[in-house]
Amino acid sequence: MSRLRFQISVSLDGFVAGPNPSEEDPLGEGGEQLHEWVVKLEVWRRSHGREGGETNASSAVLEEALDSIGATVMGRNMFGGGPGPWGEEPWNGWWGDEPPFHTPVFVLTHHEREPLEMEGGTTFTFVTDGIESALAQAREAAGGKDVSLGGGADVARQYLAAGLLDELQLNVVPILLGDGTRLFENIAGVDLEQAEVIEAPGVTHLRYRVAA
Amino acid sequence: MSRLRFQISVSLDGFVAGPNPSEEDPLGEGGEQLHEWVVKLEVWRRSHGREGGETNASSAVLEEALDSIGATVMGRNMFGGGPGPWGEEPWNGWWGDEPPFHTPVFVLTHHEREPLEMEGGTTFTFVTDGIESALAQAREAAGGKDVSLGGGADVARQYLAAGLLDELQLNVVPILLGDGTRLFENIAGVDLEQAEVIEAPGVTHLRYRVAA
Repeated sequence: MSRLRFQISVSLDGFVAGPNPSEEDPLGEGGEQLHEWVVKLEVWRRSHGREGGETNASSAVLEEALDSIGATVMGRNMFGGGPGPWGEEPWNGWWGDEPPFHTPVFVLTHHEREPLEMEGGTTFTFVTDGIESALAQAREAAGGKDVSLGGGADVARQYLAAGLLDELQLNVVPILLGDGTRLFENIAGVDLEQAEVIEAPGVTHLRYRVAA
Repeated sequence: MSRLRFQISVSLDGFVAGPNPSEEDPLGEGGEQLHEWVVKLEVWRRSHGREGGETNASSAVLEEALDSIGATVMGRNMFGGGPGPWGEEPWNGWWGDEPPFHTPVFVLTHHEREPLEMEGGTTFTFVTDGIESALAQAREAAGGKDVSLGGGADVARQYLAAGLLDELQLNVVPILLGDGTRLFENIAGVDLEQAEVIEAPGVTHLRYRVAA
């Protein structure tokens, strides 16, 4: 069964981005620290076309995800380029010519747009008819593999509240951001079960199953 | 060196109590679930004068704390009885004649009061000259053992912001309360290091050292 999985890096005080995000600093003040654990990994660097890096207890967590994900769903904000219609020279994502997904990606938006084929196996398909449609299309495209929910936090909350998420993985980073974008806001009544806990340098991976 | 340690049960969305707390429901709606992992433990029941209970991976965490704590500091709200002067028939705490601390307890308050000696080794001393004084008195009373910060969340934030806390342990319970009292609010710039992660039934214990 193809599962919908969401993993995100979060500060110990529950923020997925720091305060005052900007185009130069999309993760807000201090937010870059949320990703220090991953950008230093060899497996992450390889999937992003970079050399070097280290191997530690987080590597297996990331490798398992890379191997088992067949498609991705993400929100318009995560894809980037600002709100509203796409315009004459539309934004093609944060990731350059060869995005690190290497699978079909379904972008939730209110504005129609033709599919965008990138190098390395990533195709962005723009979905305007809602989160259930995006998930159905991603499941179909994933060919039996899992679907990754790419974020952001608002889209994750929508899938969680709708009972469509199967697995939640928090990468808890030992920092306090004090302010910013919270992962969880006003969501209750979701039945979670602990699935796995992995301690790694500078991060703890907490994996939960979402009960049906 | 006697350390100041704070441990608290927190929902996955960062709440230490649910919404709408009342005298009948001091932990707010759903807040009781935060403590289900502990009240079923044999070691907890024994320290509270009760029989029965189970032993699991959380037991050693709790036993280590019970063995190493020589004194406790807590806020007035944690001690209870409402705000303001103590009155003619003052509140003697939530815990009956034999509180489960079995050590000296220092209660932060703005209102002077004579020390209160209970059964089983617990003495409540009321401290009106601030958090540093309460900690110094507790360290003296602890006789080389550690000092436990008993809460609530507001007092913990004061000690954390003042750089006086040495260890932070979050008992993360896999529930989403959606609303209530947050553990962390507007605290940043605290340097934390992962110390230990322990997975147990219905809870994950995350222990952090606070860098000096």
